[in-house]
Amino acid sequence: MPQCSILTRVVNFAGERRLVRGRITLKKSIGAQAMSFPAPVWVVGTYDAEGRPNVMTAAWAGICCTQPPCVAVSLRKARYSYGNVTARQAFTISVPSEQHVKAVDYLGLVSGREVDKFAKAGLTAVGSVLVDAPYVNEFPVVMECKVLHTIEIGSHTQFIGEILDIKVEEAMLGPEGSPDAEKLGLFVLLNGYRGIGRYLGEDFSIGKEM
Amino acid sequence: MPQCSILTRVVNFAGERRLVRGRITLKKSIGAQAMSFPAPVWVVGTYDAEGRPNVMTAAWAGICCTQPPCVAVSLRKARYSYGNVTARQAFTISVPSEQHVKAVDYLGLVSGREVDKFAKAGLTAVGSVLVDAPYVNEFPVVMECKVLHTIEIGSHTQFIGEILDIKVEEAMLGPEGSPDAEKLGLFVLLNGYRGIGRYLGEDFSIGKEM
Repeated sequence: MPQCSILTRVVNFAGERRLVRGRITLKKSIGAQAMSFPAPVWVVGTYDAEGRPNVMTAAWAGICCTQPPCVAVSLRKARYSYGNVTARQAFTISVPSEQHVKAVDYLGLVSGREVDKFAKAGLTAVGSVLVDAPYVNEFPVVMECKVLHTIEIGSHTQFIGEILDIKVEEAMLGPEGSPDAEKLGLFVLLNGYRGIGRYLGEDFSIGKEM
Repeated sequence: MPQCSILTRVVNFAGERRLVRGRITLKKSIGAQAMSFPAPVWVVGTYDAEGRPNVMTAAWAGICCTQPPCVAVSLRKARYSYGNVTARQAFTISVPSEQHVKAVDYLGLVSGREVDKFAKAGLTAVGSVLVDAPYVNEFPVVMECKVLHTIEIGSHTQFIGEILDIKVEEAMLGPEGSPDAEKLGLFVLLNGYRGIGRYLGEDFSIGKEM
């Protein structure tokens, strides 16, 4: 967007009129809604009351703390996984790669109350030894989490889980032992599922040139 | 990953040994850490005590509720923006496109205590009329949020904000009036900044084939 010398009058929350540099781009209100820009596509692993492993896909999720390392994931109360997380105070996040995109969508469409989703999706449950939850063998990354906070928001309940360990498929690790983003083949939710694109630059680094 | 008839013995949290179908992929522990798989790259807009607009880049963030629509964003207490959000109970999320990746990295490197980051990054602050916070004119999407919950986690405090409106640059809207993912040109954090890649399929749809 080229900067130019036009001054535009804007009104802020306090009703004050100000002049701002530059041309104001026309933005259109699309209303109050929850929309991904983009959202991760993660698979939440839990055991039910009988110890049966279950998985569901969640996108209202993200990392929420560095120390202790924590993830936040929001579930509707009606979800079978909601009861499982509440009862066991534990879950895993298995992060899928592109090749599993159909299975991942399926895991968000049906309920573990009615179906063995692992079996139906051709996936294998592996029990975590750190937390009371299973993870998906076939996906390249897993985060093993115990619940620290439960926040009732509205349609969704947010579970904040401390990450006790991250496990990565060995073939996906780079020479320095950290995950190789190119090999992982992750994808996101942004008006449909989309892969990860081209490398743009190093974080906490390229901005030093400004 | 091909499914095969090999049975593997695994041990779960309760110490029970089970046989699972398939070959267990070798996963290596990389320890307990906060890592993006991937994370969004969002710019948090706030006013300070003197009403000066400030912006900072945050990646420990995501959508966390559908009704009311809410975002969660985590900030360190030391951040200038932390005090601003706490005092005003409001913030905006401006979602940048690829062309602004350097500026966005810059906004995470320096503090609004010392620098007018809008001016330094060549960006324009526009005051929201819905919440007591400014947003970035040049970025294609903005979410205007008022704080509903504040959760102390550890290094980071999570602010859950109700989205009162989403505004999208008109040129980025598709024929049905919803944001056109291709035009937005968003990017994510995944071992550096990376663009959004190829379309893989429709959510809540492609899994029906399973």
